[in-house]
Amino acid sequence: MGYADIDKLAINTIRVLAADATFKSNSGHPGAPMGMAPVAHVLFNKIMTYNPKNSNWVNRDRFVLSNGHACMLQYALLHICGYKISMDDIKAFRSIDSITPGHPEAHDTDGIEVTTGPLGQGFSNAVGLAIAQHHAAGEFNKPGFELINNYTYTFLGDGCMMEGVASEAASLAGHLQLGNLIAIYDDNHISIDGDTNCAFTEDVALRFQAYGWHVEVVEDGDHDLEGIEAAIKKCQEVKDKPSMIKLRTTIGFGSLQQNTHGVHGSPLKADDIKQLKEKFGMDPEKSFVVPQEVYDLYHKHGDEGAAKEKEWEQMLSKYAEKYKDEAADLKRRLTGDLPEGWEKNLPVYSPSDPAVASRKLSEIVLQKIHQAIPELVGGSADLTGSNLTRWKEAVDFQPPANGLGDWSGRYIRYGVREHAMGAIMNGLAAYGTVIPYGGTFLNFVSYAAGAVRLSALSHIRAIWVATHDSIGLGEDGPTHQPIETLAHFRALPNCMVWRPADGNETSAAYYVALTSKETPSIIALSRQNLPHLENSTLAHAMKGGYVVHDAEKADITLVSTGSEVGICVDAVKYLKDNHNLTARVVSVPCFEVFDAQSKEYRLSVLPDGIPSLSVEVMSTMGWERYTHEQFGLNRFGASGAYKDVYKKFEFTPEGISKRAVATVDFYKDVQNLRSPINRAFQQLI
Amino acid sequence: MGYADIDKLAINTIRVLAADATFKSNSGHPGAPMGMAPVAHVLFNKIMTYNPKNSNWVNRDRFVLSNGHACMLQYALLHICGYKISMDDIKAFRSIDSITPGHPEAHDTDGIEVTTGPLGQGFSNAVGLAIAQHHAAGEFNKPGFELINNYTYTFLGDGCMMEGVASEAASLAGHLQLGNLIAIYDDNHISIDGDTNCAFTEDVALRFQAYGWHVEVVEDGDHDLEGIEAAIKKCQEVKDKPSMIKLRTTIGFGSLQQNTHGVHGSPLKADDIKQLKEKFGMDPEKSFVVPQEVYDLYHKHGDEGAAKEKEWEQMLSKYAEKYKDEAADLKRRLTGDLPEGWEKNLPVYSPSDPAVASRKLSEIVLQKIHQAIPELVGGSADLTGSNLTRWKEAVDFQPPANGLGDWSGRYIRYGVREHAMGAIMNGLAAYGTVIPYGGTFLNFVSYAAGAVRLSALSHIRAIWVATHDSIGLGEDGPTHQPIETLAHFRALPNCMVWRPADGNETSAAYYVALTSKETPSIIALSRQNLPHLENSTLAHAMKGGYVVHDAEKADITLVSTGSEVGICVDAVKYLKDNHNLTARVVSVPCFEVFDAQSKEYRLSVLPDGIPSLSVEVMSTMGWERYTHEQFGLNRFGASGAYKDVYKKFEFTPEGISKRAVATVDFYKDVQNLRSPINRAFQQLI
Ligand SMILES: [Ca+2]
Ligand SMILES: [Ca+2]
Repeated sequence: MGYADIDKLAINTIRVLAADATFKSNSGHPGAPMGMAPVAHVLFNKIMTYNPKNSNWVNRDRFVLSNGHACMLQYALLHICGYKISMDDIKAFRSIDSITPGHPEAHDTDGIEVTTGPLGQGFSNAVGLAIAQHHAAGEFNKPGFELINNYTYTFLGDGCMMEGVASEAASLAGHLQLGNLIAIYDDNHISIDGDTNCAFTEDVALRFQAYGWHVEVVEDGDHDLEGIEAAIKKCQEVKDKPSMIKLRTTIGFGSLQQNTHGVHGSPLKADDIKQLKEKFGMDPEKSFVVPQEVYDLYHKHGDEGAAKEKEWEQMLSKYAEKYKDEAADLKRRLTGDLPEGWEKNLPVYSPSDPAVASRKLSEIVLQKIHQAIPELVGGSADLTGSNLTRWKEAVDFQPPANGLGDWSGRYIRYGVREHAMGAIMNGLAAYGTVIPYGGTFLNFVSYAAGAVRLSALSHIRAIWVATHDSIGLGEDGPTHQPIETLAHFRALPNCMVWRPADGNETSAAYYVALTSKETPSIIALSRQNLPHLENSTLAHAMKGGYVVHDAEKADITLVSTGSEVGICVDAVKYLKDNHNLTARVVSVPCFEVFDAQSKEYRLSVLPDGIPSLSVEVMSTMGWERYTHEQFGLNRFGASGAYKDVYKKFEFTPEGISKRAVATVDFYKDVQNLRSPINRAFQQLI
Repeated sequence: MGYADIDKLAINTIRVLAADATFKSNSGHPGAPMGMAPVAHVLFNKIMTYNPKNSNWVNRDRFVLSNGHACMLQYALLHICGYKISMDDIKAFRSIDSITPGHPEAHDTDGIEVTTGPLGQGFSNAVGLAIAQHHAAGEFNKPGFELINNYTYTFLGDGCMMEGVASEAASLAGHLQLGNLIAIYDDNHISIDGDTNCAFTEDVALRFQAYGWHVEVVEDGDHDLEGIEAAIKKCQEVKDKPSMIKLRTTIGFGSLQQNTHGVHGSPLKADDIKQLKEKFGMDPEKSFVVPQEVYDLYHKHGDEGAAKEKEWEQMLSKYAEKYKDEAADLKRRLTGDLPEGWEKNLPVYSPSDPAVASRKLSEIVLQKIHQAIPELVGGSADLTGSNLTRWKEAVDFQPPANGLGDWSGRYIRYGVREHAMGAIMNGLAAYGTVIPYGGTFLNFVSYAAGAVRLSALSHIRAIWVATHDSIGLGEDGPTHQPIETLAHFRALPNCMVWRPADGNETSAAYYVALTSKETPSIIALSRQNLPHLENSTLAHAMKGGYVVHDAEKADITLVSTGSEVGICVDAVKYLKDNHNLTARVVSVPCFEVFDAQSKEYRLSVLPDGIPSLSVEVMSTMGWERYTHEQFGLNRFGASGAYKDVYKKFEFTPEGISKRAVATVDFYKDVQNLRSPINRAFQQLI
């Protein structure tokens, strides 16, 4: 302990940097950085272990700014610490193509662990980071080798505290007894609508105790640096519970508007900044100033971190002598590459194999690959038996104390917490030693839309095992039958939505999902059995779209996904027998991947001159990009046995044929019919 | 009090009905109905006031089955009570076109208040129903006339308890001190993954106390009918807090598999049902049996409810003598019709009016119409100053005790709880006296996707004021800039997505949203200023799409929404000056409404023979339905001043013109170019 003037100077330097940057950009949130500068200073200077010269060291302490709008706090810290953020970057805050955007983006900026801003996400990511840490410790630590023991720290404000996703994650973190997770709650009594009294009067500390957290309270977060440090150290000592520090602060500390929401989301006025600098003993004429002694202080701490990393590397070398395989495994995982040859375990099918539900095919994949890919860590939002996400020998990830599993367990019981599952998967993936997948019904991936969006934006490899993917789930009815869901996630950039039609397509979906390091995947899987298709191979399906059934001089191409592809194949015969029409069938298990193929290939699948009809039991939205006409379901479904539901909506060979005939008829006089693959210009992607 | 054999018989009758119906349909959830039959019996027989012959009586007690998968419990009760559910309907459980679908759907089935099943929603709807009740009481009750004093009861299980949306709603309910809300938590220690010990070990009672709820515990929910009744009555007495009863029950009570998840989501086996009936003293050969004395018991209670309604009607008559306007207002509200002439308050603009952000135009609408539509109850998820959702004179809806508002207040401070806001709006609308709207950024409507989906499915008039609708929000950056959001909700059936381009379109959006009794609306609004368009009128915009700028012998039609329409208008001049091309401009503020126009009209807007280009700063998905080519943003945005962001992505007259030229060129050799409005066949809607 022991705080001196230099600490005060550092804290005020951070506060003023936040005020300067938001003022210059005429945009941003100075209030939270100014209020949280003291705790940030203590954390980054006295507590956290990190090496600014290597932001990828696996055993670094993690820091997540869940109230991401306070990112000038984080940019200021990272700059002063010596991460790759220059003062010019700080000056470019919130301007085009800077590495200091309006909310922290992990893929853009050195030292940012996860992309935050959408409230509640960062806290939940931190739970994921802490799970991954406990898991990696369980897997890799050995007697005398505590390789993995970092802490995960997260800051969050009232907004994050109110979000349901954070509540879900907090409940799970308490259950899991994540001792190395420490959350610091900026209890400043202010949110955008004003005093939190107007909407948020619960007893947050008691709530976290109810979740099973250890709770500390620091009454004067503006000045009591010793108290802050003591509270954090107490939390570090609590090994069987995550900890939350309720830290009373003053938003916009030092501003004329401190303690009001006026300082939350708007820059300080010029005269306010002037008085602020004067109050802090700084030159009001100067901006973007960091005194050398402040740099020195932080660099000293960073150097200590670098030294600790060096020690750690030495430990790892010794560990590698004794535990060769484990060390090699750890190093490989951190590259993001899968073990060589893992893909040989993927099951392959032929058309004579019996029909199987694709959720079951997914289970078979997981059963076959889990040994080859030790970093695969699965789970389900309380639908294990329906999602079929658990391989037979799986051990649950649980605190050893509850007797239900172990830290090294690779199956997470997420509970009915889809949104938290999504955000936790983002944290798991960000840690570096785990590739996460999680199961729920496709319809309820929507509950996690906020988290999926951030997976896509921040290039996270997370896999959703999304079963019960359509009206084919049958009796549960419209409340559970997705209609808009595929369109939603297909419209999300950098998100692969797979809807495999059979066994080989399911294997291909997993292959591409697992080898796409920068992209999340949603694999939509059927409840009902599906036949294996004639021309389906892993190589074909990995192109995202291919010809399942070809024909000379075809009158029409039927284009489909998942459970409807097999029905389209049946429609080929119906069309020939009843209408003397010749049909091709194309399967497009993944738009995003198909779009990435050469135009030549795409045109070979969806050629000019043949009218095409899409068939999918969901919203037709988006299919116009690939086909001339669309047969889908632009309404909600119905409760009943799945075959009855399909019949009701005419997704039968007969119903498809009816629309195919209409399509052929509609285009019969069109000269030089173009495939929709032909476009006038390239899209911005 | 006083329970006898008849009560036991009634309870077991309900249990066995649930077992019979799920057995017959070979699908469904017998466990929860069997476990909750005792509390349901007490509630429907000794506690709740309702009239089965008039399920619309406004002061009836409300019942919400948040664990909607237990719907056989509700169907059985409604049938025995004498609602419009016959035994044949029960026998048709989960079969096509029955009124007894797999989860309860309010628009299908008499006596169902809200559509439930997606976990956490029903509980949150109940919070909305309770808010509406407290609000209506605040507005209509007068000394000596306690017109509105009903209770809202909700059942929920572990699943709902784990969902974040329910946590958000519970926190707000506690803050709002909703004394007439009573939640009964089916604490059966079982969820789908097995014992709740594996994922859900928090102290739920303590958590609810932290939210400010009154909590009762009943240890033997299987047998202790007196205890259940006493607990509910105690909760009724607590007037300054919502109440939660933690009720320990046995899932699947009576089954050989009771107390296991095996009885949760699968029918009982035949021999299990046999032993169940024998155990309960029933004839194992008979199914779907309700003893006459059970009907009689429930009908007696229903008759008492009918008598209470009659008394209430008499009170209303007397009230109407003394409070003529209030009585007329209440009666009108219950019809769902708006006051005559309200629409005269909608602001109208001309092109010479100054440019205004559409979020500001929305504020002007609310300011102008709030007096004419007293049932309008607004709010925001802690973004009031950004969403501009509060009219100047608004009073907050708050418990009078906190001094910040009143029960009659019409502005709800939702806190940062978007998902709960959506679900609460569904409950508010279902009550009958309120039309709810709620504000957040468009990007965060996605957090509430689960609730919006249920608004659409169950025909709820709820309005989202979704500001900061695009990359036009600027500096906040990609984490806050919607890309996929419009496509997502456009793909959702029965959901109107509006993106008005100017003042008259904003007024039109509100007009259609407010007068569409069966459809939710999302109104996407800009942060940046927008000019008023030449040909924009309320009448035009109310068609969902119209010609903003027409031209003879046009070379191209530019089709756009919101903030890009004005840029398209600028592009017309650019195209003429630089490329000698003549362009038309079409605005399509709402796909759903445009689709409902006659084909003739739609073809007049998007005619054959002219190539068309859509321009919208989001995913192009869905635009292929209206235009030949699409200019959009199939990637994430960027942080920076909005004009810089628009420029980066070329959404400028020049950038649009470049694509327009490419489009004209691409289609120049096509004979008889068809408008995409022409389709080969009609969609299923
Ligand atoms: Ca705050
Ligand atoms: Ca349960």
